[in-house]
Amino acid sequence: MSVEKKAWEGFSGRIWKEEVNVRDFIQNNYKPYDGDESFMAEPTKATMTLWDELQKLQKEERAKGGVLDMETEIVSSLTAYGPGYIKEELKDLEKVVGLQTDKPLKRAFMPYGGIKMAEEACTTYGYTPSEKLHEIFTKYHKTHNQAVFDAYTPEMRLARRNKIVTGLPDTYGRGRIVGDYRRVALYGVDYLIEQKEKDLANCGCGTMSDDIIRQREELAEQIKALRGMKEMAAIYGFDISKPATNAKEAFQWLYFGYLAAIKTQNGAAMSVGRVSTFLDIYIERDLEKGILNESEAQELVDHMTMKFRMVKFARIPSYNQLFSGDPVWATLDVAGLGMDGRHMVTKTCYRFLHTLENMGPSPEPNLTVLYSSNLPEAFKKYAAKVSIATSSVQYENDDVMRPVWGDDYAVCCCVSATQTGKEMQFFGARANLAKCLLYAINGGVDEKTKVQVGPEYKAITSEYLDYDEVMHRYDVMMEWLADLYVNILNLIQYMHDKYYYEATQMALIDTNVRRTFATGIAGFSHVVDSLSAIKYAKVKTIRDENGLVVDYEVEGDFPRYGNDDDRADDIAVWLLKTFMEKIEKRHTYRNSEPTTSILTITSNVVYGKATGAMPDGRKAGEPLSPGANPSYGAEQNGLLASLNSVAKLPYEYALDGISNTQTINPGALGHDETERVENLVRAMDGYFDQGAHHLNVNVFGVEKLKDAMEHPEKEEYANFTIRVSGYAVKFIDLTREQQLDVISRTCHSHL
Amino acid sequence: MSVEKKAWEGFSGRIWKEEVNVRDFIQNNYKPYDGDESFMAEPTKATMTLWDELQKLQKEERAKGGVLDMETEIVSSLTAYGPGYIKEELKDLEKVVGLQTDKPLKRAFMPYGGIKMAEEACTTYGYTPSEKLHEIFTKYHKTHNQAVFDAYTPEMRLARRNKIVTGLPDTYGRGRIVGDYRRVALYGVDYLIEQKEKDLANCGCGTMSDDIIRQREELAEQIKALRGMKEMAAIYGFDISKPATNAKEAFQWLYFGYLAAIKTQNGAAMSVGRVSTFLDIYIERDLEKGILNESEAQELVDHMTMKFRMVKFARIPSYNQLFSGDPVWATLDVAGLGMDGRHMVTKTCYRFLHTLENMGPSPEPNLTVLYSSNLPEAFKKYAAKVSIATSSVQYENDDVMRPVWGDDYAVCCCVSATQTGKEMQFFGARANLAKCLLYAINGGVDEKTKVQVGPEYKAITSEYLDYDEVMHRYDVMMEWLADLYVNILNLIQYMHDKYYYEATQMALIDTNVRRTFATGIAGFSHVVDSLSAIKYAKVKTIRDENGLVVDYEVEGDFPRYGNDDDRADDIAVWLLKTFMEKIEKRHTYRNSEPTTSILTITSNVVYGKATGAMPDGRKAGEPLSPGANPSYGAEQNGLLASLNSVAKLPYEYALDGISNTQTINPGALGHDETERVENLVRAMDGYFDQGAHHLNVNVFGVEKLKDAMEHPEKEEYANFTIRVSGYAVKFIDLTREQQLDVISRTCHSHL
Repeated sequence: MSVEKKAWEGFSGRIWKEEVNVRDFIQNNYKPYDGDESFMAEPTKATMTLWDELQKLQKEERAKGGVLDMETEIVSSLTAYGPGYIKEELKDLEKVVGLQTDKPLKRAFMPYGGIKMAEEACTTYGYTPSEKLHEIFTKYHKTHNQAVFDAYTPEMRLARRNKIVTGLPDTYGRGRIVGDYRRVALYGVDYLIEQKEKDLANCGCGTMSDDIIRQREELAEQIKALRGMKEMAAIYGFDISKPATNAKEAFQWLYFGYLAAIKTQNGAAMSVGRVSTFLDIYIERDLEKGILNESEAQELVDHMTMKFRMVKFARIPSYNQLFSGDPVWATLDVAGLGMDGRHMVTKTCYRFLHTLENMGPSPEPNLTVLYSSNLPEAFKKYAAKVSIATSSVQYENDDVMRPVWGDDYAVCCCVSATQTGKEMQFFGARANLAKCLLYAINGGVDEKTKVQVGPEYKAITSEYLDYDEVMHRYDVMMEWLADLYVNILNLIQYMHDKYYYEATQMALIDTNVRRTFATGIAGFSHVVDSLSAIKYAKVKTIRDENGLVVDYEVEGDFPRYGNDDDRADDIAVWLLKTFMEKIEKRHTYRNSEPTTSILTITSNVVYGKATGAMPDGRKAGEPLSPGANPSYGAEQNGLLASLNSVAKLPYEYALDGISNTQTINPGALGHDETERVENLVRAMDGYFDQGAHHLNVNVFGVEKLKDAMEHPEKEEYANFTIRVSGYAVKFIDLTREQQLDVISRTCHSHL
Repeated sequence: MSVEKKAWEGFSGRIWKEEVNVRDFIQNNYKPYDGDESFMAEPTKATMTLWDELQKLQKEERAKGGVLDMETEIVSSLTAYGPGYIKEELKDLEKVVGLQTDKPLKRAFMPYGGIKMAEEACTTYGYTPSEKLHEIFTKYHKTHNQAVFDAYTPEMRLARRNKIVTGLPDTYGRGRIVGDYRRVALYGVDYLIEQKEKDLANCGCGTMSDDIIRQREELAEQIKALRGMKEMAAIYGFDISKPATNAKEAFQWLYFGYLAAIKTQNGAAMSVGRVSTFLDIYIERDLEKGILNESEAQELVDHMTMKFRMVKFARIPSYNQLFSGDPVWATLDVAGLGMDGRHMVTKTCYRFLHTLENMGPSPEPNLTVLYSSNLPEAFKKYAAKVSIATSSVQYENDDVMRPVWGDDYAVCCCVSATQTGKEMQFFGARANLAKCLLYAINGGVDEKTKVQVGPEYKAITSEYLDYDEVMHRYDVMMEWLADLYVNILNLIQYMHDKYYYEATQMALIDTNVRRTFATGIAGFSHVVDSLSAIKYAKVKTIRDENGLVVDYEVEGDFPRYGNDDDRADDIAVWLLKTFMEKIEKRHTYRNSEPTTSILTITSNVVYGKATGAMPDGRKAGEPLSPGANPSYGAEQNGLLASLNSVAKLPYEYALDGISNTQTINPGALGHDETERVENLVRAMDGYFDQGAHHLNVNVFGVEKLKDAMEHPEKEEYANFTIRVSGYAVKFIDLTREQQLDVISRTCHSHL
């Protein structure tokens, strides 16, 4: 390998020098840090100056209705623009450079996913899309969205229109592919090209099956993308063909890898990955050499983080309803344990959390702590402290993920793990299992639109619902739904590969890639509680003039999910397992491995609007509870009991993630910061040691939310960030509907 | 079915009214004609006026170097242009209207197969391609050619560069798909759309495998194409949504179907199909009704034929070398027998042949008589008469094709049959088996470029070639070549479907389509004669300084293919069968059915140039003999012996066709027209009764060719047409090289 020896001077290990293997590099070179946060530095003057500028721009953006500027004439690409900076006059202050377009917060024009959507995004914000580009992307070049709708069956369209399957990535990029951006820094692009060229030479034994032909073309596109990445960096004056030689270059090279991704794809989730411990190795080397000090190290972290806070895509209103508050899921993971038992907390894990203090709370990057009770106490406490202060951090259980994905996975969206550089995910939104239960009761007729959407199975005609009958009918209706859903996704993923292949990201992933096929569940808690109601209480049907059940009356009491009551929680486990079994027995695109998630993001509101009344007492149109959360108001036994219920869901049945979002009143956690930190750490240790997967931690009272909703102009709310299902968002950026939903969620006033 | 009853008034039959089934319509309604040519009419004044205009344009075209005009700014599509006519002032004279572009003989810009080629075609003829379109088809939309080269392996590129596989449709459209254009006339487009929509609804059981998704998208594109076809006709003032109600409409509707194909595809072969007997039914009905007379009927045929004579595509020099003389293979078939034993000769079969008399000889449409000794004598004689006068007709053996393809097949290129509306072909050019023999001798090293192209098998080191050793080495080298060749084609066909799908043609073919995978052989006779020389004489190798065999000396005599000598002819059969076996055991794209052909078109010259000296005495660089023809000069026993040799090749081993082109001195056929006609018919009866597949009949002496080559300006040579391997061409449009090749072919001076 012809790499400058200088770049790797002082780095240990062997395998990573022989092949592309960032994990091996990390394991051989990182230094676990067991100390506390006291080593860290305040933001530099440059950081504060740039951050002030950026905040001004963000304010301006909000004042303009959510979009500061938009491209209409240039199609985004690696080399579509000259260099751009936060502020031209201040460009020398930026330690990490590179914008998506030529101006900060200006949104690019990205038509490949769907020209209609790209244009609608423009017109929504008062911009006029280019006629020339309209012609090109309607007359000459077909887009993903058009292709999907060309191939949909009427049944698929009907199911989609009636929202029993929903949030499908047919009007937006599927995202959820994390390029191993670290490779750019460690190896430089030339070596990556060389390796991909070898892969192309070895792709297939000569027999040209469709799969091999497709892969060969994809590899050719990846190689082009890598060449484009070098050109893109050259526009900013950098030559990334060779490995980074110091920390500053490592940050810059890595960011260029990510920038290349967000210039070419506008997937729902464009995650950064697990980069802190990797970058720490470069910082440590420079610190030891005496060519970097802590303040400069923090500055690199702050400046890169600022860039992640600036990622923007042009979106359409229906997208914003699903994914409220302009998220991009620039998810960035810290901590976790290695397969050898050493924790992977480094100073740079601290430094990334510290950005929330240096520059205040922010939804992006979506900071994720890969949690284990075996992490150093000091780090757990620091993370808890930052959580309590900012409500901007989420936690995922490294102890359940590590056995499945190893010690170099990253979160590719909200909560879903993928092995970095070795895996990609076919994202697939969700099936509304709550609605499916109503279809089971009504023989496939939609309770809202009154249209026959599902198969014309026998409807339930009795006045009172019989548990066994409901379970049988639900089983067959779920069978139908799982089949339809998987096939919709097969079709979408096929077209995405055909019309909107992620060459830039896949160029930074192994050619021999593992593919997961992610499905998702919406309305989880309402199905569980409804079945519990039918089983343990008496549920009376209320029918409209045509005999369609449109509401329910529950007579008597019944156990609800979220109270650590096995009667309800067992139903929850049954539901997850049953649905997953129905998914995984089917043909999935490219022989990908099916997974599922219980994770709804903010789409719970839209999904709920489309869902009729449920036997658990939820009224028609009300938001579903998000992710795997118990239903609003169901949790009667405090936070810990609620956590215990969710923790019972086996991660192995939902490898794509089980999202749980909790809000705790600061008072409930303790009287002062120390007590709160300790209690939160103790609660999380207990929760995760039971095998739970995920926790969003919010620490504030409902009153603050109400005040922020009424007075968004108050300075203190400008960056007020909360965790919703799977990501963080500025509360004032939510729609009023979403804000009301958040307010109505359970806020635990005791543990 | 909601079809206007008027359109079908007087037509019999049932099944074709229930489903799209043109064959059933024909069988139920056509009237076999047993009479002679005396009924036919002279060209009308309108025909002569238009034909004069067209000839002027053709002259102008030739004067301008082969291209009259070229589009550079507009991408060809169904609706890219307003109406166009041979001459605006004469448009009322045109009974059948519709041009590829806005002006006669103006070539369209068709970039989907490859933007480089489209642009090279422009610059070759002095036109400047559009920068805007360059940007679109390089930056935004990938083309077939680019995709193929992205995916090629180095081995494939090497084999291609060294021309052991050659003429591959990677720089041009694969063509060879005959839409059932008759459907437009019989059913109108609305019904066709309705049926395709039904097919889309029934495409797949719900499980979305890649194959089903692809097919669903293709169906959606077909439906769009049908809608576009209606718009295209509307531009000319016609509503083709309903069936044609009379002969004139039937001609016009059918032509619009074909026009739609040539506006959207520039495949090497864009054949018209088997239309004469179909159209005859409409003419007969109008004649009976008294709303049409013979002169008007002939005028319809003449005017439609004139349109077929005008089809042009923009080509590049390397294409013209392969397919010399600007052919488009607008192949149009007449005659044949039905499965029920009735012959299918109608008056309109006569009328189409008569166009060669009314408007003189012409290479296009590529008139093909589906021959059987059981055709009416009068018709056989008339066809022979036209052949003798024009050398513009080819013959194919209906008796061998009918059992395989039924009685509604059509020739989709030069000689290859496909079932009309039920089948498509993946065209695949040819493997140079002559070169392969040299590779076998030289251990995979190319005898011209000295590069290791094939596998590094042991070379033959002996001074004299040993038959058994050669046969063994040839067998394994052919195995390699067959594998590589099939895989190259798999790749090309995949990309063609992906980037240049023939939606317009496939819209006129059954959804449940049969796909053949056509391979081809070049250098056939030279391999046969070489092996014969090695077996029956002594062949001494002559080596260069590196020991590479570069020439051969034959000591003694040996039997040659083309003399009705089983010793040589058995080798021919062995070669064909062996190659086909090696092809058909491999995976072929879309599970298509592999076939092969012995058919080289004019590419024999290019292929020969790339092929070294052969053991049969053929010198390096000399043209290969075309198709299945015996080698030049090999035939020593007259035409009939030559025909007998070729006739021994079983059609079942070469379902894609066995092309045989013969030239007979008029004097050899007889002393007067009657004698010549009778002798030609007798020769063809004998030839085809033995199971031979194809015959190109040229009747002229070498002197005429030599004179035409030296004096192309003479008026008599303006339309002097000859049959070459698989098509007809104006002799003066051939390159000098090609002309010399034609001149050196055997011209039989006795039967």
